[in-house]
Amino acid sequence: MSPEFNLIAKYFTRATPSADLGVGDDAALLRVSKGYQLAISIDMLVAGTHFFHDAAPYDIGWKSLAVNISDMAAMGATPKWATLAIALPEINEPWLAEFSRGLFACADRFKVDLIGGDTTRGPLNISVQIMGEVPTGEALRRDGAKLDDDIWVSGKLGSAALGLAHLQRKITLESEVAEHCLQALHTPMPRTDLGLTLRKKANSCIDISDGLLADLGHILDASNLGATVALDNIACHDFLRARLDEAIIQQCILAGGDDYELAFTAPQSQRHAIEQLAHQLDLPLSLIGKTTEKLGIEVTYKQQLLDISKKGFDHFG
Amino acid sequence: MSPEFNLIAKYFTRATPSADLGVGDDAALLRVSKGYQLAISIDMLVAGTHFFHDAAPYDIGWKSLAVNISDMAAMGATPKWATLAIALPEINEPWLAEFSRGLFACADRFKVDLIGGDTTRGPLNISVQIMGEVPTGEALRRDGAKLDDDIWVSGKLGSAALGLAHLQRKITLESEVAEHCLQALHTPMPRTDLGLTLRKKANSCIDISDGLLADLGHILDASNLGATVALDNIACHDFLRARLDEAIIQQCILAGGDDYELAFTAPQSQRHAIEQLAHQLDLPLSLIGKTTEKLGIEVTYKQQLLDISKKGFDHFG
Repeated sequence: MSPEFNLIAKYFTRATPSADLGVGDDAALLRVSKGYQLAISIDMLVAGTHFFHDAAPYDIGWKSLAVNISDMAAMGATPKWATLAIALPEINEPWLAEFSRGLFACADRFKVDLIGGDTTRGPLNISVQIMGEVPTGEALRRDGAKLDDDIWVSGKLGSAALGLAHLQRKITLESEVAEHCLQALHTPMPRTDLGLTLRKKANSCIDISDGLLADLGHILDASNLGATVALDNIACHDFLRARLDEAIIQQCILAGGDDYELAFTAPQSQRHAIEQLAHQLDLPLSLIGKTTEKLGIEVTYKQQLLDISKKGFDHFG
Repeated sequence: MSPEFNLIAKYFTRATPSADLGVGDDAALLRVSKGYQLAISIDMLVAGTHFFHDAAPYDIGWKSLAVNISDMAAMGATPKWATLAIALPEINEPWLAEFSRGLFACADRFKVDLIGGDTTRGPLNISVQIMGEVPTGEALRRDGAKLDDDIWVSGKLGSAALGLAHLQRKITLESEVAEHCLQALHTPMPRTDLGLTLRKKANSCIDISDGLLADLGHILDASNLGATVALDNIACHDFLRARLDEAIIQQCILAGGDDYELAFTAPQSQRHAIEQLAHQLDLPLSLIGKTTEKLGIEVTYKQQLLDISKKGFDHFG
């Protein structure tokens, strides 16, 4: 097993100040802050399914951790520790060096310590578990939305999906727009600061990974509510805004996925406080609709009902 | 993503009394007992590398969790929670039903709650993260062995490796012996009770997954010591005992791996207490050697030095 241990030591071992014991023993050891719950989430990324086989390893490293940190943001948890299990078809050191560079760039940016892991031989597969802390009882959940809540989304939606469509040659983008969209696709920025500040404001929260309608749908299903959403109110890149009449653009925003923004609901009484948040965090927060008693999601555009039946939106399903 | 969610709901969702929030949200939530550290370990198992493609899914399910629980035993931690990420080439419901049956059989036996996970499409790959608790400061580690410590191993070694050799047709076993060895290979029993009781007795501990010499070697490397080990003193199945002169049998015991027993060192002053433990737990505990100042491991058999250079023992490396 020597090659395995050399890999861990060489590419994934670093000081882990937030843990009592990091990489190197049978398990890592840590202490959770008093009065806090531990939040845990695991995500597996497979070459061919979650990223292209020839994607830049730096980007794969960044995104593997970022998508997990996003789950912490969605719970209102502070991300703190992560473990990484990776299967590699061969020991490709330049690839590993870049992968770990991207992973640690994300870890450093979000102050997450990599405290354990496993490397093995096999088809490329990356499994990251993230752990964070949230004051007991304050975690944001999917099932807390209330009737007549405001529905909000952070940031600008659709760019990552548009970047994917560009790579798949479904659309041609100017180089500047392409660059923006591909950056959104390859190196998303999870909204941890927003998640933390929403703890006592929002009733429910989820991160947008599959797509706004799909993920908002999880909140609504768990809370037994429906929603109305105005496409016009969803912030998006100028390029998408200018072409909002087109089906492919509408699909990118509503169903594209890979945004890693937060969708959340909050009482109307919190509206002003949330608008203040947007300024404090210098982050667009769009009020896009409200929860309803009638189940299902109705999307309007220019005050007209938009057809979002599966037929039109299964490109990205 | 509906198929993914149906899988989680159908096969992997159960009540999780030990967690505050289990499967179903962006993350699971739990509270660590006051005065305890959280121990975390992750293992990835790949078809073709860790198990045969046509291995019984019940066994794969059991073993995926068991090998992780064994890491908890090696730390002296009480295993409590687990998450499972699994990539499947296709949705094969009979396979999944059996896999989850084996996984939960192990979980129930060791009182572990499955609190989260991810299922995705891809070549078969199973990533399990285990979490447990240990009183702060009492975890058993690899680097705590002292000079002149007694070296102990639990249970009987070599059976699982012999089972593997039988499957690979390197040896032919009578059906009763084969059955015992294959059970050891497919459904190992991690030594959690022993791990807990060793907390204030042992100086160091590791679980035997790669093989006795390899894993004992990790303790010695971390503690900057060597060891002498008497092959004769290692408990093993009668079948191996009768053929202890043969190289293949010696290799199974010393280097076969997959035993998931514990190897640990303790001060000589604990000798009697540990012998008492063996009776209390109804578990063989073999005193097999001692730590030395001179680095490296010397193995003796019938008081003669045994040649364990890599050449003779790389079958299982």
